[in-house]
Parts: sequence; C-alpha cells; structure tokens
Amino acid sequence: MSTENREEPKQLAVLVLGSEDDLDYARKITDQLQEFGIEYQFRGGSAHTSPWHVFNIIRDVENGNSSIVYISVAGRSDALSAFIDSQTKFPVIAAPPKSEFGLAKYLSSIDTPAGIGVSLVIHPQAAAVSAAKIFALNNPSLARKIEELHEESVRKKITLDNKLIKKR
Amino acid sequence: MSTENREEPKQLAVLVLGSEDDLDYARKITDQLQEFGIEYQFRGGSAHTSPWHVFNIIRDVENGNSSIVYISVAGRSDALSAFIDSQTKFPVIAAPPKSEFGLAKYLSSIDTPAGIGVSLVIHPQAAAVSAAKIFALNNPSLARKIEELHEESVRKKITLDNKLIKKR
Amino acid sequence: MSTENREEPKQLAVLVLGSEDDLDYARKITDQLQEFGIEYQFRGGSAHTSPWHVFNIIRDVENGNSSIVYISVAGRSDALSAFIDSQTKFPVIAAPPKSEFGLAKYLSSIDTPAGIGVSLVIHPQAAAVSAAKIFALNNPSLARKIEELHEESVRKKITLDNKLIKKR
Amino acid sequence: MSTENREEPKQLAVLVLGSEDDLDYARKITDQLQEFGIEYQFRGGSAHTSPWHVFNIIRDVENGNSSIVYISVAGRSDALSAFIDSQTKFPVIAAPPKSEFGLAKYLSSIDTPAGIGVSLVIHPQAAAVSAAKIFALNNPSLARKIEELHEESVRKKITLDNKLIKKR
Amino acid sequence: MSTENREEPKQLAVLVLGSEDDLDYARKITDQLQEFGIEYQFRGGSAHTSPWHVFNIIRDVENGNSSIVYISVAGRSDALSAFIDSQTKFPVIAAPPKSEFGLAKYLSSIDTPAGIGVSLVIHPQAAAVSAAKIFALNNPSLARKIEELHEESVRKKITLDNKLIKKR
Amino acid sequence: MSTENREEPKQLAVLVLGSEDDLDYARKITDQLQEFGIEYQFRGGSAHTSPWHVFNIIRDVENGNSSIVYISVAGRSDALSAFIDSQTKFPVIAAPPKSEFGLAKYLSSIDTPAGIGVSLVIHPQAAAVSAAKIFALNNPSLARKIEELHEESVRKKITLDNKLIKKR
Amino acid sequence: MSTENREEPKQLAVLVLGSEDDLDYARKITDQLQEFGIEYQFRGGSAHTSPWHVFNIIRDVENGNSSIVYISVAGRSDALSAFIDSQTKFPVIAAPPKSEFGLAKYLSSIDTPAGIGVSLVIHPQAAAVSAAKIFALNNPSLARKIEELHEESVRKKITLDNKLIKKR
Amino acid sequence: MSTENREEPKQLAVLVLGSEDDLDYARKITDQLQEFGIEYQFRGGSAHTSPWHVFNIIRDVENGNSSIVYISVAGRSDALSAFIDSQTKFPVIAAPPKSEFGLAKYLSSIDTPAGIGVSLVIHPQAAAVSAAKIFALNNPSLARKIEELHEESVRKKITLDNKLIKKR
Repeated sequence: MSTENREEPKQLAVLVLGSEDDLDYARKITDQLQEFGIEYQFRGGSAHTSPWHVFNIIRDVENGNSSIVYISVAGRSDALSAFIDSQTKFPVIAAPPKSEFGLAKYLSSIDTPAGIGVSLVIHPQAAAVSAAKIFALNNPSLARKIEELHEESVRKKITLDNKLIKKR
Repeated sequence: MSTENREEPKQLAVLVLGSEDDLDYARKITDQLQEFGIEYQFRGGSAHTSPWHVFNIIRDVENGNSSIVYISVAGRSDALSAFIDSQTKFPVIAAPPKSEFGLAKYLSSIDTPAGIGVSLVIHPQAAAVSAAKIFALNNPSLARKIEELHEESVRKKITLDNKLIKKR
Repeated sequence: MSTENREEPKQLAVLVLGSEDDLDYARKITDQLQEFGIEYQFRGGSAHTSPWHVFNIIRDVENGNSSIVYISVAGRSDALSAFIDSQTKFPVIAAPPKSEFGLAKYLSSIDTPAGIGVSLVIHPQAAAVSAAKIFALNNPSLARKIEELHEESVRKKITLDNKLIKKR
Repeated sequence: MSTENREEPKQLAVLVLGSEDDLDYARKITDQLQEFGIEYQFRGGSAHTSPWHVFNIIRDVENGNSSIVYISVAGRSDALSAFIDSQTKFPVIAAPPKSEFGLAKYLSSIDTPAGIGVSLVIHPQAAAVSAAKIFALNNPSLARKIEELHEESVRKKITLDNKLIKKR
Repeated sequence: MSTENREEPKQLAVLVLGSEDDLDYARKITDQLQEFGIEYQFRGGSAHTSPWHVFNIIRDVENGNSSIVYISVAGRSDALSAFIDSQTKFPVIAAPPKSEFGLAKYLSSIDTPAGIGVSLVIHPQAAAVSAAKIFALNNPSLARKIEELHEESVRKKITLDNKLIKKR
Repeated sequence: MSTENREEPKQLAVLVLGSEDDLDYARKITDQLQEFGIEYQFRGGSAHTSPWHVFNIIRDVENGNSSIVYISVAGRSDALSAFIDSQTKFPVIAAPPKSEFGLAKYLSSIDTPAGIGVSLVIHPQAAAVSAAKIFALNNPSLARKIEELHEESVRKKITLDNKLIKKR
Repeated sequence: MSTENREEPKQLAVLVLGSEDDLDYARKITDQLQEFGIEYQFRGGSAHTSPWHVFNIIRDVENGNSSIVYISVAGRSDALSAFIDSQTKFPVIAAPPKSEFGLAKYLSSIDTPAGIGVSLVIHPQAAAVSAAKIFALNNPSLARKIEELHEESVRKKITLDNKLIKKR
Repeated sequence: MSTENREEPKQLAVLVLGSEDDLDYARKITDQLQEFGIEYQFRGGSAHTSPWHVFNIIRDVENGNSSIVYISVAGRSDALSAFIDSQTKFPVIAAPPKSEFGLAKYLSSIDTPAGIGVSLVIHPQAAAVSAAKIFALNNPSLARKIEELHEESVRKKITLDNKLIKKR
C-alpha cells in the first residue's frame, strides 16, 4: 500500500493541444481521467511551428515527474504526436479530433518514421483508458478502477439487455 | 538498481495473432523487441470464434507476470484487440498487418465501444517502440535504450544528410 | 396447413443491439418484421466487452425455439455479428446503422475470419426482408407475404409511372 | 432421420454468374458447399441485359425444388442480386468477386431499393456458410456440420496457439 | 427549314425515375430541357423490381417517336440505366442524384457489363446539355441554342471578370 | 434507303488523346467502333497547355462532317473533355483510362462547370456503344447493329448459362 | 532600400475565380494578403469554357507588372490552374474551395500534365503565405513580415500554453 | 544581362529528403532542375525526430544564398514541409513520393496549421517547374526556358496530333 502511495502522486497525463479550438474535445478525455483519479495537465504547442517550445514543455513536465503519458490532440496534420514521441522516453497517445477528411485525417498520426512509437485512438474516452492502463502497471488501485470500468461495461450491457428484452 | 532487476524479468510482451499468415508481419515487431531486450511470447487466437480461448491465453500469460503489454495482430476485421482490452487491466496495442482495403481496414481496431482503451499502430516497429515505452516507465535501462534509439535516429539523419549533401 | 402452424410459432428474429442508441434504427427493422407478422425480440450485448453475456443470450433465445435468425445492430466496429455467427448454427444478418465513416464502417461486419457466414445489409428494411426470406423457407404464408411485397413494389412503380407521366 | 432425408434432396444452392471469368471465384464458394454436402448448380445470366433469361433460370430451378438459396456472383455493377431477389421468395446472397475499386464495388450489391432483401458477403467461404446456415434450419445433419466447422475453427486456433507459443 | 420542322416534333427526352423522391432533382434537368425547347416526359420504374414495366415504358415511348434520349435518375444502386440501355437502340444518360456515399454511388451507373453504352453526368444541367447535343445532330435550331448557351457562358465569365476586377 | 446512305459517310467519331501513352486504351474503343463500321479519327491535344490547337482540331474535323461525336481520352486531370464540349455543338464522351487514384480520377471529367454536357464512361467498349447510339439516331443500319449487339449479349448469356449448368 | 521600393509596387497577386460563388472563399485569401500589404486583383474566368478570355486576363495583368503570382480558385474540376500555368512564366497556386467530394476534389488541381508547375494549398491563408514567400524573394520588408508572422505563431502557441496550463 | 548573371548564382533549390529511399524519386525532380540549369542540393533530415538538425540545414543553406526554394520529399507523414516553412522566409514545395494510401497520403502535406504556406505537387517534374517559376521572377533567362518548355509542350501536342491523325 505504501509503495503505491509513493508512486501515484508522480503519475501525470500531459495533454498537448495544437489549438484552443480542441479544448472541448480534450475535455472529453480529461473527464474520464478525472473518473480514474489521474492527474493531468493541459499544455499547448505546435511541432510544425515551434518544436523548441514543445521541447521546453517536455522538459518542464518531465522534471520531477517519474511517470508521464502524453496525449497529443492535433486538429490538422498531426506532427505533434511523433515529435513529442521522439523527444521523450515516455509513451505518446495520439488523440486527434474528428476532421472533415474522415479516416484520411488519422494517417498523419500513425504513418510515422522509423523509431517512433506513437499509437492512435479516435474516441476521447479511449485515450484516457489507454493512458490509465499504462499508469496502472504501477498503480494497483488504478488497475482496480479499470477492472471496475470493465465490470461496469458488462453490467451496463446486461442492464441494456434487460431493458431491451421488454421492448416491443 | 536491485529494484530494476527485480521488476525487469516480469515484463512480457504478448503478441496474439489471428492467423499463422501474420507471423512474418509479427516477426518485424519482435525483431525490435529483441533489440530492446524485451521478452515476448507469440500466442494465437480469435475473438470472433473463440473468446474463451483468448481469455485463457490472457489468464495464462498474466499468471505470474506483473507487467504485460499485449500486441494484437489481426489480419481481417479486428475484434481481437478490443476483446483482449476488455478482459485485462494491461495495455493493448493493435498492430494489424496491411490490407487491400487500405485505411478502411484500420477502422475496426479503433472504432471501439465505450470503456475500451486499444490504440493503433500501422508500422510493426512502432508497435515494439510503443510497448517499450510503456515498460520503460518501470525499467530505467530500457528507457535508456529508447533514448539511444532516438539518438541513433538523429545520428542517422545527420549521416543521411552528410551523404546526400555530396550527391549530384 | 397444420404443418405450417406447428412451425410458425417457433420462428423468432433476435435483434442484438450494441447500444440503446441504436434502438431507433432497429425499430425500422422491426416495423417491417411486424408487417410480415414475424415475432422478434430485442436483446443487448457486446462481443467486445462481454461475449459471455452474448453467449448467454444465444443460449437463452435458442432454448425452445426451433428457428432463429439473428440481426445484429452494432454502431461502431462490428464484432458482434461474427461472434454470434460463430456460436450458433442459425443465420446472422449484420444490419449496422450508418456511420460518419461511410463505406469503411461496413468492412468490420464482412471482413470476417474463416468459418464465419455473416452477411450484410445497409438498409433496415432489407434486414427484415432478408430474415423473412429465410423464415419463409418453412413458412408458406410468410412466403406469400414476401411475394405480395414484391407485387406491391411493382404496383407502386406502375403507380409512380402513372403519376409521373402526367407531370410537366 | 427419415425426416431429414426427405427434405435434404430438395435443398439447392444456385450460383448465378454474370460471366465465365467469375467461375474461379465461384468455385471457392462451391468448395465449401461440397464440404457441407450441399447440392449446387451454376447458372449464368445478366439482369442488366437479359432479365427475362434470369427470370427463366429462376423458374427453372424453383420448379421441383422446395428450398433454394441464390448466390449471385456479379463482377461489375451488381444488378443481378437485387433482380433475383425481387423475383423470388427465396433468399439471395450477393457474393461479388474483388474489384479494383475496393469497397466502392460492393455498394451496388447492398444499396438496393425498398422491398429487396439481398445481403452481402465478401469472402467466398462466407457465402457458403451463410447459405448452409439457412438450409440448416431444416436440415439437422447440416446444422451439425456447421457446428463442427465452428468447433474445428476453435480447435485450429488452439492448435495455432500451441504452435505459436513455441516460436521465438 | 421544313426538314427541321419535320424532325423536331419527334425528339423526346424520357426521364425515368426510380422514386418520386428524385422528382425535385429531375426538375433541375427539365428546367434546362425547357430552355432548349426539348420535349420531355417523366416516367417511373425500377429495373431491380420490375424490368417488365420498364420495358413497357420503353416500348410505349418509342412507339411513334423517331428520336429519343433516355435520362435515368436512380437514387440508390443504379441498375436502371444499363437495363434501359440494353433494351433500346437509343442513347441513355445516367443522371443519378447525389448520395451520402459520394463518388462510390456513381460506380453502379458506369461499371456496366459488355455491350452497354450508358454514360454518366453528375450535375443535372449537364444531363440536359448532353441530351440536347445528341438531338442537335438533327436539329439545327437546337444546335444554335447550344452554341448560344456556350456564348452566354463566355459572356457570363467576362461579366464576372468585369465585376470582380472592381472588387477590393 | 438512299437517305441513310447520304448521311452515313458524314458520321465521324473523333478520339482526342492527351498522350501517346493512351493509344492502347483508345484502340479498345476503336475496336468496337470498327465492328460497328463507324469511321473514326485519332487526334492529339491538351486543353491544359494548348486549347488553341484543340480548337483547331475541332474546326478541322467539323469542316465537312455533318455529324461528329468526340471521345476524349485524358490520362491525368481531364480538362480536355469539358473544353471540347464548350467549343462545339457536338456531343463529347469522356473515356479516361484507369488511374492509380481509382474513382477520384474520374471526378475531373464530370464535375464540370455550368453549360457543359460531357458524360463519362469507364469501360472503353462503352465509349464506342455510347457514340454508336448517338449516330444511330440517323443511321438505321447502325441502329440495327446495336440491336444485334444486344441480341448477341443475350445469346452469350444463354450460352454461358448452358455451359455453366453442366459444370460441377 | 531604394532597390526595394523600386520593385515592390510591381508585385501583384492575381486571384482568378471560376465563379462569383467563390468570392467569400477568396476573401479569406485576400485578408491575409492585405495583412502582408500585397497588392491583389480579382479576376474571373473559366479555362473550360473560355480559355481565350483567361488568356486575355493573363496578358492584361502581366502588362506592366514585373512580378505576378496567380492564385486560382476553381470550385469544381480545376482546369483553370494548369491552363494559367501553361500560359505564363509566373507561378500559379491552386487554392480550390472545399467540396463535398473531399480529397478527390483536389486531384484535378495537381494531377496535371507534363510541363505544368501548379502547386496546391487547401487552406486560404496558406495561399496568401505561399504567394508572400515568393514575392519576399525580392521584397525584404515582406520577408520580414513573414518572419514576424512566424514569430507571432510561436508567441501564440506560448500564450496558448500559458492559458492552457491553468485550465483544469 | 549582367543583372541576371549577378543574381543567378545565388539561386538554389534545396531538396530535403526524409530518407535515402526517396532519392530515386527526388532525382526525377533534379533531372528537370538540371534542364533548367537550376543549382540544387540534396539534404537529409526529419522534422519528427530532429527538427534541430533540419533547422541547422536551413541556416546552413541560407547562409550566403539570397534566393532559395525548398522542395521537401517526405515518404510517410509529412511534417518536414511545414516545419521548414515555419523556419524560413523562403518558399517550400512539398513533393512527396507516391504512397500505398493514395490521396490520403497527401493530406499531411497540406492540412497545415495557421501561418504556414506549404504548397503541394504530386508529380516530380511539377516540383521543378514550380521552383523554376519562382526563381524566374528574378531570372529572365530562366523565365525564357519556362516559356520554351511551354512552347515545346505545345509543339509536342501538335506532333502527337500529326502522328495520331495517320493512325488507323
């Protein structure tokens, strides 16, 4: 128990947004992070125009935090995810908002060069669950919350079934 | 240092394949895992036809391993990734092989229901780097290897530049 | 005639929904089922998160019914159709609601693994007609209703023609 | 047993091909039909150019057969499936061969007018399984074969797993 | 002049609609036909469900008209255009309304079998101009109207230019 | 009869190619034109780079020919079809060769500005049949050949059917 | 300094629009041109219907201007960009408005024939920046404005970051 | 003449490649640059992994060159083009090689953030012509070469026409 407590405070999800327009979308991610009790921080930057600043964000958030997961939220062509990934030992989840270009929009997040480990989610809650699962490797109480979410998902389906079975 | 050693042996990447046809593709993932010194295991199963068996794989590999990352390699419609994700507290990376249907193929890996945290990569090396970054949160020597891969990537670009600058 | 009567009560269309959000869409299917006089039942479940529960639904509905057609209505990536298909000797029709991803959405319903026999419709009425045709193999009065629907379709086109021919 | 025998001889899968070029593709369907012991017939016709002839095929094959499933194999724009569907009380499965136009090719099979019940498969074996499941409603021994195919699918995955677990 | 008059009354554009829903779209075609002074007729039918009736339409409109151009307006999978084409010596222009499936919708109109001569337009006015150009081969005054439309198009661009050049 | 003979010699299909690379494709069109006995001419030009030259082609071929159908064969973005269309009272059929960009390639042929009447075919034989149907309005013997092609199509399907029915 | 002044007055961005409907879109381009202090002119024309007129526009604007960048704004199939490009030594930027056909719309702007140098932007501001960068080669004060825009972009991201870091 | 000579030596096209694999593609660009007599340099770098190095390339090539056009050749997701664009006052042309993902690949080059002026070409020769047109603003002899290329394009079409007109 004490081991857990020692590590939990140091876990931090860092959401890097390319634009303030993406804040509403990002809030859907942090809603789920909050339910998990995961600490998070919003940051803003662009790998296209100011990688130096994004690099400073990385240095800033990594200083004093032993365990970080980045969630990058880039509204157009996504260079942010892979750039962050290349500058850190910590995992990066690309969570781009929907675009008028459909599936084509997502290609820039994942068609990344050699050496990059970015992975993509397209639903905001999935970004939070994905981050939570990573943190949970060191955080038994969080692991339990994920299992509870799974159990709740199953219960919801059973409830749905009980409700639907009565419909005509 | 002793803390690290105690944890490292328990880290395991589990590659679940939907078909033996996908083994060549999966080997490109494990090539990089081997370079990182990450232990891995191939398993085979289908969430469409035998989720019970996949569930047994999950129980089997999780028994005695404190830290697992699943990499699911499904050649057609990918139900495997989300099913594994829903049955475990551990992270799941979908790493589907290329398909004749291009980007449309990848949708089944990421258009997942509520509560699921699967994330997608489309290059096999990226699956390994993504898994490595997760393990590295608890594995300083692995974290260092990722940083070395990044440094090597930069050096390779500089070497490429030095080579190209002489071309005419 | 008595043979028909003996079999008809046992025919049942089972609509398995992934979410309550899909109920409006599913109702367009059951509207046509009702016109055919086909008994149906709504059920709810997810192959991604709770195949056990879906399996229980299958066992539940198949108990005492000699003739079932499943219609699976899955709003995101469709694992439901193929999972049901793999657990039953009865036919499964995938009838997914429309998605923002257009044709790509439908791929998860039909790019299924070996041994699976799911077939896809994209208009809700088609799901009902497809199910009715299967039941009609053992149900002469239902077969007649399908023929009447066809005849009505022809009449409607003739009526349309008579109406249009007067337009200027 | 005698009940089965009485019904089985009357079950017939009718594969209607738009062109002789599609015969190789259609043979992948009949390979599986043969494994199921389902009787089948190849026919050739075009709804675009000669619906009368296709109508004659329908009358011809339906004469004396109490139970038919049509499998339509149309290489370009698929009008065949919906036309057959509109002229018969029996089920129609569209099983078009792959096309250079990818997913767009399949739209003509399923974007059908009101009153039509065509359903689509994109793998040839799936056409056979889909037909078999329909026939199995009246054919217990065929139903058993489908269950055996399912069981074999599960065994194959377990065998795959046993084989993969030894790979390094 | 007398030659023209003798032939002009016999020229008829026949718009065959698959549904009354497509009438608004078809009216955009006839608006331009009216400007050209081309006689037209709306008809309704479906090649999927009632090719016989469509065949009767063909016989009906061709009886006593020496010169016909068909414009087929089919809202879903377009079998109508190719079926009409195969039953007549007269030209057929496919003019399908827009669909949620974008370009994929148009494939059914043009991926037609050997021997078919359907051609596709996606703007309603283009259907009318295309038909007019065909009729104009025998109709000098109509040919002149097409040339006037072209001249007007050029004048409109010059007017546009004169207007735009003053904008700031 | 003498009327026909007087008109037939003046009918000419003009195939305008954007590149010599497209000649093989264009030959598939002229193969069918030859079977119909339609006179044709290959011409080469680009609306993007030299509309003046294309305009000269138009003046050249229209001089002394009372009846022309243009078939434009443009390998990349198709400006040729609409430019020719805008400069002539005669019909223009766009018959672009296949492209690596699939359906997207065809959009430039048909998303044309107001006043243009270009129509699209994607199979080369269809270009020839489409042109033939236009000429047939004034050419009874050609009309008869089209009807023979249709009759042959039907006979071919019956032959195909007779052949397939014997296959096992 | 005097060198600059001598050249600057002669720089002109010429926006050629295919339709007045595209004026709102084009204004988003000129908004940025105005911020840069770049002189511009709207012109209207169509390469499909009146290349002569477009040619006259080219001659008109090039007369007396030593330095021009064309920005072509074509709403449907874009022949305008490549036609202008082929008639001038000056650069041409294709800046088509969005279309219901998504990415496919843009193909006509860039799948151009040999010898053409059109380049594509899909955001209106990018058209202005792209033009400005070209003019800046000869215009130090404009070059400075571009650098200021870049610096401002960086500052905006830092401001965004400072704002986001306080959000919860 | 002396004015030209003074400026020409300082014009430089800088091709930045993401990988040595793209060198063959890039050579198709430089083949045309050579025909124009434009000096060029190959450089190699990645904005995803080493923007610092790319920044150094920019500083290096811009030092002592008064006039540069960048041509970025990025094989996967293209962050290179926009990053270079954001760090320089000089123009950037994105010239990505073809990809298995078709049009979707190009989106990352052009769906760039505010303030960026990257423009896209998809044919390698177009990259060279686009760059040449920019340099030609200050280089009358190069401008003349572009006009000669245009004239040659027209002559080639006339030659093609003369050749095709004799074909049967």
